[in-house]
Amino acid sequence: MLASDAEFMAEAYRLAEKSFSEGGLPIGSVLVRDGKIIGGGHNQRIQRGSPILHGEMDCIENAGRQSTYRDTTIYTTLSPCMMCSGTIVQFKIPRVVVGENVNFGGNEDFLRSQGVEVVVLNDPKCAALMRRYIELHPSEWGEDIAET
Amino acid sequence: MLASDAEFMAEAYRLAEKSFSEGGLPIGSVLVRDGKIIGGGHNQRIQRGSPILHGEMDCIENAGRQSTYRDTTIYTTLSPCMMCSGTIVQFKIPRVVVGENVNFGGNEDFLRSQGVEVVVLNDPKCAALMRRYIELHPSEWGEDIAET
Repeated sequence: MLASDAEFMAEAYRLAEKSFSEGGLPIGSVLVRDGKIIGGGHNQRIQRGSPILHGEMDCIENAGRQSTYRDTTIYTTLSPCMMCSGTIVQFKIPRVVVGENVNFGGNEDFLRSQGVEVVVLNDPKCAALMRRYIELHPSEWGEDIAET
Repeated sequence: MLASDAEFMAEAYRLAEKSFSEGGLPIGSVLVRDGKIIGGGHNQRIQRGSPILHGEMDCIENAGRQSTYRDTTIYTTLSPCMMCSGTIVQFKIPRVVVGENVNFGGNEDFLRSQGVEVVVLNDPKCAALMRRYIELHPSEWGEDIAET
């Protein structure tokens, strides 16, 4: 039996929690093909001083080189920013499952306009963890989304 | 005296040549603030097995965390793909100088629609080096732009 979207999101959430426990931005992501996770990651701004390793980017990087992404789904605890949305479009990832888009969002229509299926789970755990980080670390959050 | 766009592009080209000499995709990039290069990089798909480190992404990563990009210009030997274009928009980089858009292009209008100034230099050296790589390594090039 293939795992459900909720089960893959639970793994993305586990990676977000790991990042939070390290003092980092709690955004996690997994990339799935044929019901199996081929890569996972989380935001690395604090941990590795990386401006580009958002959760989705770290996940795709960790999956390594792929001949195609047309048969994959990416899961992310937080709605993708324009960097990550552009990456999803460029790499032709056809489906994105989003934990929540309350704390950040706005690129879902762009993704859909490019033919990407976007599913928003409205997961209260993802939203609560992200909100907690933003309250604790507003300047790091502002830096991460270039709202400074 | 501030260096000119052509001088910064020459440094991006030097990084593209370095990548070519390593067997990698010859796309180089520099990020500039106040007439000084604050980061440089090149495509790392072959050298580091990285799907996300296009020239622009490697450059931004090497520049490290920044409080703002609103006062920067990014130079790239090849017109940015949608990943790199999305990153430029997300990070609010206001100006992009492109070496050439003959071997790859198409996102200039998207960038302009988001308020980014795009300058295309039509540099024959950038175009010739990229064309040479594509002729030698068509499958790696196809993988890099997800045209497989």
